[in-house]
Amino acid sequence: MIGYAFMGRAHSQAWRTVGAAFDVPEVARRVIVGRDEQAVAEAAQQLGWQEHATDWREVIARDDIDIVDICTPGFLHAEIAIAALEAGKHVLCEKPLANDTAEAEAMVEAAEAAKARGQVAALGFTYRRVPALALARQLVADGRLGSIRQVRASYLQDWLVDEDAPMTWRLRKETAGSGALGDIGSHAIDQIQHLTGQRTTAVRGRLATMIPQRQGEDGMEQVTVDDAAWATLELDGGAFGSVEVSRVANGAKNQLRIELFGTEGALRFELENPNELWFLDSTAPIAEQGFTRILVTEPEHPYLEAWWPQGHVLGWENAFTNQARDLLVAIRDGEAATYAPDFADGLALQRVLDAVIASDAADGATIPL
Amino acid sequence: MIGYAFMGRAHSQAWRTVGAAFDVPEVARRVIVGRDEQAVAEAAQQLGWQEHATDWREVIARDDIDIVDICTPGFLHAEIAIAALEAGKHVLCEKPLANDTAEAEAMVEAAEAAKARGQVAALGFTYRRVPALALARQLVADGRLGSIRQVRASYLQDWLVDEDAPMTWRLRKETAGSGALGDIGSHAIDQIQHLTGQRTTAVRGRLATMIPQRQGEDGMEQVTVDDAAWATLELDGGAFGSVEVSRVANGAKNQLRIELFGTEGALRFELENPNELWFLDSTAPIAEQGFTRILVTEPEHPYLEAWWPQGHVLGWENAFTNQARDLLVAIRDGEAATYAPDFADGLALQRVLDAVIASDAADGATIPL
Amino acid sequence: MIGYAFMGRAHSQAWRTVGAAFDVPEVARRVIVGRDEQAVAEAAQQLGWQEHATDWREVIARDDIDIVDICTPGFLHAEIAIAALEAGKHVLCEKPLANDTAEAEAMVEAAEAAKARGQVAALGFTYRRVPALALARQLVADGRLGSIRQVRASYLQDWLVDEDAPMTWRLRKETAGSGALGDIGSHAIDQIQHLTGQRTTAVRGRLATMIPQRQGEDGMEQVTVDDAAWATLELDGGAFGSVEVSRVANGAKNQLRIELFGTEGALRFELENPNELWFLDSTAPIAEQGFTRILVTEPEHPYLEAWWPQGHVLGWENAFTNQARDLLVAIRDGEAATYAPDFADGLALQRVLDAVIASDAADGATIPL
Amino acid sequence: MIGYAFMGRAHSQAWRTVGAAFDVPEVARRVIVGRDEQAVAEAAQQLGWQEHATDWREVIARDDIDIVDICTPGFLHAEIAIAALEAGKHVLCEKPLANDTAEAEAMVEAAEAAKARGQVAALGFTYRRVPALALARQLVADGRLGSIRQVRASYLQDWLVDEDAPMTWRLRKETAGSGALGDIGSHAIDQIQHLTGQRTTAVRGRLATMIPQRQGEDGMEQVTVDDAAWATLELDGGAFGSVEVSRVANGAKNQLRIELFGTEGALRFELENPNELWFLDSTAPIAEQGFTRILVTEPEHPYLEAWWPQGHVLGWENAFTNQARDLLVAIRDGEAATYAPDFADGLALQRVLDAVIASDAADGATIPL
Repeated sequence: MIGYAFMGRAHSQAWRTVGAAFDVPEVARRVIVGRDEQAVAEAAQQLGWQEHATDWREVIARDDIDIVDICTPGFLHAEIAIAALEAGKHVLCEKPLANDTAEAEAMVEAAEAAKARGQVAALGFTYRRVPALALARQLVADGRLGSIRQVRASYLQDWLVDEDAPMTWRLRKETAGSGALGDIGSHAIDQIQHLTGQRTTAVRGRLATMIPQRQGEDGMEQVTVDDAAWATLELDGGAFGSVEVSRVANGAKNQLRIELFGTEGALRFELENPNELWFLDSTAPIAEQGFTRILVTEPEHPYLEAWWPQGHVLGWENAFTNQARDLLVAIRDGEAATYAPDFADGLALQRVLDAVIASDAADGATIPL
Repeated sequence: MIGYAFMGRAHSQAWRTVGAAFDVPEVARRVIVGRDEQAVAEAAQQLGWQEHATDWREVIARDDIDIVDICTPGFLHAEIAIAALEAGKHVLCEKPLANDTAEAEAMVEAAEAAKARGQVAALGFTYRRVPALALARQLVADGRLGSIRQVRASYLQDWLVDEDAPMTWRLRKETAGSGALGDIGSHAIDQIQHLTGQRTTAVRGRLATMIPQRQGEDGMEQVTVDDAAWATLELDGGAFGSVEVSRVANGAKNQLRIELFGTEGALRFELENPNELWFLDSTAPIAEQGFTRILVTEPEHPYLEAWWPQGHVLGWENAFTNQARDLLVAIRDGEAATYAPDFADGLALQRVLDAVIASDAADGATIPL
Repeated sequence: MIGYAFMGRAHSQAWRTVGAAFDVPEVARRVIVGRDEQAVAEAAQQLGWQEHATDWREVIARDDIDIVDICTPGFLHAEIAIAALEAGKHVLCEKPLANDTAEAEAMVEAAEAAKARGQVAALGFTYRRVPALALARQLVADGRLGSIRQVRASYLQDWLVDEDAPMTWRLRKETAGSGALGDIGSHAIDQIQHLTGQRTTAVRGRLATMIPQRQGEDGMEQVTVDDAAWATLELDGGAFGSVEVSRVANGAKNQLRIELFGTEGALRFELENPNELWFLDSTAPIAEQGFTRILVTEPEHPYLEAWWPQGHVLGWENAFTNQARDLLVAIRDGEAATYAPDFADGLALQRVLDAVIASDAADGATIPL
Repeated sequence: MIGYAFMGRAHSQAWRTVGAAFDVPEVARRVIVGRDEQAVAEAAQQLGWQEHATDWREVIARDDIDIVDICTPGFLHAEIAIAALEAGKHVLCEKPLANDTAEAEAMVEAAEAAKARGQVAALGFTYRRVPALALARQLVADGRLGSIRQVRASYLQDWLVDEDAPMTWRLRKETAGSGALGDIGSHAIDQIQHLTGQRTTAVRGRLATMIPQRQGEDGMEQVTVDDAAWATLELDGGAFGSVEVSRVANGAKNQLRIELFGTEGALRFELENPNELWFLDSTAPIAEQGFTRILVTEPEHPYLEAWWPQGHVLGWENAFTNQARDLLVAIRDGEAATYAPDFADGLALQRVLDAVIASDAADGATIPL
């Protein structure tokens, strides 16, 4: 594993737990890699890795490493992922795939070659492994919503409400690529496409930077990414999607909300209550219709057989363990070719994000994909 | 109509509206009666009654009066209702039927004789006319819950939280009969019996007076009724019921909550969101099970065809109009014999309330009915 | 009152009730007007009007008429309203003000002249009179949200989900003006502007007609209005707004939802639970922060002193009675000059709707206002 | 650790995770003990224990064992816990403390002696470590509710709704002690006492066995424990408590609900949404009052600094890790004397449960404590 910050901690918890929860091949937490020797040594100790290292290239070259889990900031993804794939490793790369499309294209190329050799190149859109969203996907795939007409996804946070919050690398275009759009809008758009099973064909978008300057180390500095973004999507199955994301939505902590409206049903989900899926079956008798709150904790639900009894709910972190399970199973069963989401999904998504930005730059014009 | 306070206002709104909402015989708001001439004159003016009067006996004797609507405090119910029934009028009497069982028995006797003459003797358990609760009754009657095992009803309010709230007639046993138990517990128990279609066969109860003294006009005075009450009921269909009521439940404004658990389904209702009924069908596939929020505003729902389009919700007052409709239809169609709830229902309920009080007095012993 | 369909019934209920609920000048329901003599006669009888008529011009000419309440389809508003204002009457006109801007401008001109003579020219954006939304407006005006940055409003319905639902005048541009945008989007945008106290300065919009043809009386017919619409707004106080409306959102019955995010707080409202307002005070201690569910039924809340005790909730219809109260008070107190919303508000809103349509026609380009 | 079933898995997850989440002394998962050699060997492998064993006495005798974690069925608790304490080990014992009071008393005696030697004797009422409930305790202790008057706790499950579910040891008095009362009622009563900081002084109770027979291995067998139970409690601070528990509440999966009503505020919690605490401050201005949904995921909240960023919610299992943290800290800091809940708490609770049973046996009579 490369990186030991927020995502590194979450992934460590997953690797630590996956074998106890699921029937999967054993996996050893061999080496954790970071630039700061002392910090990575402490992380190895705390998070339970056998060794630590500061040079990822050396680690990738080792024979006793099978999987490389990339939890670094986005601008390092391409170099590491391509090297790891070329070294014959399976790779799990956190989203976003890369900071720009050129990098992403190179990564996909390396991944396609690796896939042909049986290596999995997985992308960390972990929310696909939230059981309620996995169930949502099943219900759509089973046709329970009929034909989907309209989808709404919003992802609202509030950590930038305070104008006095200081400048960070996340607010500079050169390090972060984009703002709320890339960071959390990517999840919203991935869910729209994943849940509907439809691809985006055209986009209109708008970006806004509501607090244009923030205090940097050397005085006020320009914020060069969006605080909030809006988009409408045309999907290839005929549905329309809308997206709204924000980092200044006061009181919204981690509020990914998704609504799907079809001809025969509808679905609602909200990440702050991740064990609930709300399902409408509009083919039921009218007097009994309404959204059903499914508490997604039954053994019949995706991933749940591995966890606790009914009603003993899961938290945010469990989706990472589910993801680790899927990756280990795909490796064991030789499913590199079909594992999703993969790098190509990441590139496709990157292109949608780019189209939103391009549309905003073109005064809202439709950008085809 | 006799009485022009809170209930008088609610009933006036019903009589004023029923003909516009429903296809019922015309009803004129002829006379409103009260003891204070000036106040009742103002009420007649404001609430839209043709005349006002101070002597209910004279009004009852009039030929142009068909229906007597009794909205006075409970201790006046018996005398007026019996006189009105004997005068050949249809009667709608607010709950509780009477302040003690002897009075209630006399009322039932008068009502049975009147019924035989085709007069309706109706009791104002208005919440049976809340569409969501009427739908709940239908679902139970249709067997959608299977056999009912357990029922919970609570009715919590908070208007006595403040220890400095002054003494009132509602807190004296001689004027009020009982406290939270009779006032709001009666609704909870009526719903338990009505929704399950089962009668109470035995009771255990407890009463508590948490603030034992309050400031009266002449110094501190003893509170002689309950602030809160609890009971468990055995029902003749084999179900168990629990009741909890309170006037000191801080933050609960008018919180009647009901839950029914059967072998094949369950129901939930809360009066602060009166347009919602939550229904579980446990015969559905497990992966899709859960409580469905039915927004009870469809034309297919009880009473709703008369009101507004879907999603245009009703308020607390509309149940009174629905009640007026049912009464007018029962009179028109000669359904005096089957109209419910009637005085006998009120007496049966009074006996359950008495049993709760008797059980508490007997240190919690079971009181059979 | 002119018109006796859905809105006519709702307004009749308001006029019937306003004097019983509020301390206002007496108002007689003198004449109801409609084109079909028999139907309007029945409506007069059922809804409680003294007379009926088929010629609105004659009625407007009568001296015993003080207020003209226009509940007709939108394309008749201009002619009637202007005539009524010129005849010296106070006017309450249902929204939308008019079907096109030219008409609306003429109406505003007539209204300005009438205002100068002390006549009220009121527009029926009734949701401003929902107590929870009136409270929301107060909280914003009192600065409890700080500076507002982001607003979201959606209004979703589902009555056109069914592809086999037939063609109606509401789906033809020439009779309806626009589709979901004008019908329900107008409410969403009015709330955004009203609650924030900010005006729209620029718009980007998108329209979609998902079911392009419907069965008419003479075969399949083209639907020429939108089934769904999206817009982003720039507001003159610096906030950004988003709007999404739909008639094909399965399971959404009458779902107007509004969220406001400010620097010091936030608000949430949903019309299917109209008695609840959710308020975040982000200046409170962090450990105790969150959205507070205010049950807007206290005497301290707007309009509530006139209604029922705490926790006895109101329904959709009560806002119309509140509106009637405000209108009668404005007339009594000579507040024609300040009554809101007035025709000018309707014209301003119409221009925002037009800008949304223009933006969509210009491939999403920003339309300044 | 002794035992490797449901609780063994949950505790293993806690020991595996505690060092990564919290700054605590290192703890090695040394030995897991069970009677079935093959099964415990597999459990050791899957759950990540260094060794396995079948004789708990041998393990307790080892010098390299510091903590004994007892996850066996209740009837084995006393023997193991007393032996472990006498061997100088710290002990964490799952609830219920014991199956009868005599055993529990012996355990408390051993624990008191051990405490004097600095050993922690901890009882696993893990829900005290749910952050939202820990916050609730803080708010009460800080006086934010004023004086508490009324408490309601219910714990409803539905795994025995099906009459055809077979007989198990949990339904026999001799192996399980009691039914829903002891299993889940113990949690409800522990929370009532813990959150209020008040002890029970008197009890009235009722038990019911709704499905009196179930299919055993040798034909139909009598169910000798309760399916549901109800109780009212008098608390030494003057509050009244009510308890309702059930295993036949259709649709309730793991529904522990708690409500506390005080003179200055109120609290609500529900275990199926364990990250939410609802708090009413009734000293706030009336127009802004209501229950605030606190999403208990801020660094300012109990235990949360160790976990994920705001809005990234925890699941049921995390409370076990919090419990492991508290135990390790208590050992490190020499807080054996004050650690809670301890065995004495378990005994006190057992006496309340016994009083409920005794009350039911005495036809509902009040049982003092």
